[in-house]
Amino acid sequence: MHMEKVNKAVAFLKDLGLSQMLVSDPAAIFYMTGRWIHPGERFLALCIGEGKAPVLVLNELFQFQEDIGIEKRYIKDTDDITEVLKGIVDPEETLGIDKTMQARFLLAMMEHHTAKAFQNGSFAVDRARAIKDAGEQEKMIKASKINDAAMAQFKTLVRDGVTEKEIADQMLGIYQSLGATDHSFPPIVSFGNHASDPHHEPDDTALKEGDIVLFDVGCVYENYCSDMTRTFFWKNEPTQEERTIYNTVRRANEEAEAMLRPGIPLCSIDKKARDIITEAGYGPYFTHRLGHFIGIEDHEYGDVSSAFSNLTEAGNTFSIEPGIYLPGGPGTRIEDLVLITEDGYRRLNDYPKDIEVLG
Amino acid sequence: MHMEKVNKAVAFLKDLGLSQMLVSDPAAIFYMTGRWIHPGERFLALCIGEGKAPVLVLNELFQFQEDIGIEKRYIKDTDDITEVLKGIVDPEETLGIDKTMQARFLLAMMEHHTAKAFQNGSFAVDRARAIKDAGEQEKMIKASKINDAAMAQFKTLVRDGVTEKEIADQMLGIYQSLGATDHSFPPIVSFGNHASDPHHEPDDTALKEGDIVLFDVGCVYENYCSDMTRTFFWKNEPTQEERTIYNTVRRANEEAEAMLRPGIPLCSIDKKARDIITEAGYGPYFTHRLGHFIGIEDHEYGDVSSAFSNLTEAGNTFSIEPGIYLPGGPGTRIEDLVLITEDGYRRLNDYPKDIEVLG
Repeated sequence: MHMEKVNKAVAFLKDLGLSQMLVSDPAAIFYMTGRWIHPGERFLALCIGEGKAPVLVLNELFQFQEDIGIEKRYIKDTDDITEVLKGIVDPEETLGIDKTMQARFLLAMMEHHTAKAFQNGSFAVDRARAIKDAGEQEKMIKASKINDAAMAQFKTLVRDGVTEKEIADQMLGIYQSLGATDHSFPPIVSFGNHASDPHHEPDDTALKEGDIVLFDVGCVYENYCSDMTRTFFWKNEPTQEERTIYNTVRRANEEAEAMLRPGIPLCSIDKKARDIITEAGYGPYFTHRLGHFIGIEDHEYGDVSSAFSNLTEAGNTFSIEPGIYLPGGPGTRIEDLVLITEDGYRRLNDYPKDIEVLG
Repeated sequence: MHMEKVNKAVAFLKDLGLSQMLVSDPAAIFYMTGRWIHPGERFLALCIGEGKAPVLVLNELFQFQEDIGIEKRYIKDTDDITEVLKGIVDPEETLGIDKTMQARFLLAMMEHHTAKAFQNGSFAVDRARAIKDAGEQEKMIKASKINDAAMAQFKTLVRDGVTEKEIADQMLGIYQSLGATDHSFPPIVSFGNHASDPHHEPDDTALKEGDIVLFDVGCVYENYCSDMTRTFFWKNEPTQEERTIYNTVRRANEEAEAMLRPGIPLCSIDKKARDIITEAGYGPYFTHRLGHFIGIEDHEYGDVSSAFSNLTEAGNTFSIEPGIYLPGGPGTRIEDLVLITEDGYRRLNDYPKDIEVLG
C-alpha cells in the first residue's frame, strides 16, 4: 500500500471540494495499492477520503491472501453493491466517482442515496499520478534506458526484403532480454510511405532500397512505460525533401524540449513545435498533439496540445513527438520522453537524432 | 444497418418504460450497425428510440466513408457532448443508458439536463441480442462446426513432452486454415492436475503418460463465437475415479441438454446438472455456473445458473458446461453450445463425448 500516494490524491480531492472518492480505474488502484486487479465487468473500488482508512471492495473471484495493509471487503455476484457501500461511504457527503465507473453502478448508487451527491473526482487521482515521485521516476528512467538500448538492436534487424511484421515480431524478445516485461503499446514499424500514417500497423510490406524506416516503440519496466520514435533511412541518403522534413521535425523536437521547466502552460510547448513546423510550410501536415503524459499507462491524463493549458509540474513525464506526414509520403516523427525537474527537465531518451542511413 | 435488430431492441425498451436510449457498448453497436468501432476512452453512442431515425455519434478520429444508412454525427475532442446531444435526445423523456457508459458522460448529461431522467436500459439490448435471428444462427452453427473440426486436429498435436503452450500456440493457425478469423477467447490447454483449475492458463508444463488433457477452446467466424470443452486421456485408460468423474460430468451435460426447450427457467437447467453431480457426491467440486450466453461476444448477457430465473426463448445460444474439479486433480469438463429452437433445441457441437484415450 502506497499511503503517500493515497494522501496526495486525498489532498487534491480537497481542491475539488470532495472529502471521499471511489477509485475504480484498475491502473489507479494499482498506483495506490501496488496490486493489479482486472475485474472485467465486475465492481471494483478503492474508497479513499480525508481521515478515512482506505477500503478495497472487490469481487470474491479476485481474492488474494497478501496483506496490503488495508481492509479488503469481498463481495459476491449476487450482492447488492449499495448495501456493501453502507458504512464505507458517508451518505451525508458528496462522493467522488472515477470518470470511467460503469453507469449501472452509478445509477444504482444514486437510486439508493449512497451519497449526498456524485461528482467526477478523477482529476484528483490523475493529478497525483501526473507527479511522479522519486521511485516512479527511477522506473521511468530505466524503462527509457532499455528503450534506447532496444532501438540500437531493432535497427540491426533491418535488411532488404524483411517485412514490417517480421521486425515487430522480434521486438518483444529483445525487450525481455534487456529486462523489460512487455511492450507498452503495439509497436509501430513503418516502411516507405507508411511513415506518413502516424498510427500505421505493421503489415507484410517488404523493405526496399530508399525506404524510410520508422520505429515508434516502448516497453514496460516494473510496471512503468517508455515510448520513443526514431526515423531512419535505408541504404540511400535522404532526398532533399526528406532531409528538409527531417531537420524541421528535429528542430521542433529539440526547441520544444529546450524550453521545458516547471510552471509553463503545456499548450505553449505544443505551440513552440507547431510554429516551427508551420513556418517551414508544413503546418497542415503535423496532424496530432505534440505529446501525452505517460507512466503506469502509455497514455495517462495530460496532453501537450493547444487545448491543454495546465502548467507543467516537477515530476511530470510526457512525450515530445512532433511529426510531418505528407499524404503519400514522406513522413517523419521524432519522439522522446522527458521528465520535468525542480529547475528544468531531463530527457529520458539518449538515442541520437542525427540523420542515420542504415545498411 | 440492421433495422430489424434496432426495432427489436426498441420494442423491448418499451417494456422497460423507455422511449429512447443511448447504446454505447461497441459490441451492441456492431450488432445494430454491422460496424465495429473501438473508441477507447472517447464518446460513442447510437441513439435509438420509438419513431426515431437512429443517429450514430462518434469522434471524428473514427470517421468512415461507408454509408450505413443512418446519420453519422462527428464530434471533436474539444466538443461538449451535451451540446451535441441536443436535438438528438428528447429532454422531456427519460433516457436509457447503457450499463457500461462511463460515469463522466452520464454525470455531464445529468448536470446539463440532457433528459428528464436516466435509467439503465441495457436489458432491452441484451434481450434482443440473446434472441439470434436466422442469419446469426447460421454463423453460430458454422463457428461451432469449425470448432468441432479444429478439436479433431488439436488432439493430433498431443505427444509426450509437448507443453501446454506449444499446443495453444498452434491453435490459431488451425482455426484460420478452417475459415475462422480468431480465437473467441484465449484457449485453455490443461495437462494432468491443471484440469482441476477451470481457468488454467497454458504454461510450460510438459505432457506425461497418464495425464488428463483438457481443451476449452473457441473461434470467431464472421464475428460470431464458438466455445467447446473436451477432456481426453493420454496413453493410459482412465483410473476408476477418473472414469466415475468423467461419466458423471457427461451425464450432467447430456441430461441438462435433453431437457432444453423454450419457456423453461434457466436456473432449472443448472439445477438438473448440479443435482446429478451432487447425487454422485461431487457437488462441492462443481464450482461454477452451468453455462453462459454467447454470440458476438464469448460471454453475453444471460447465465445458466441458480441465480438466473429468466425463461429460455427460441434463438437463445448458450453453453452447457458441467465440470468436477477435485483439489489436486483429477478435473473434467464437457461443454457444448446449444441453440433453443421453436420446439426444442439443437446441439451445435458434434464432437463425440465418449471416453477417448489418445496416443
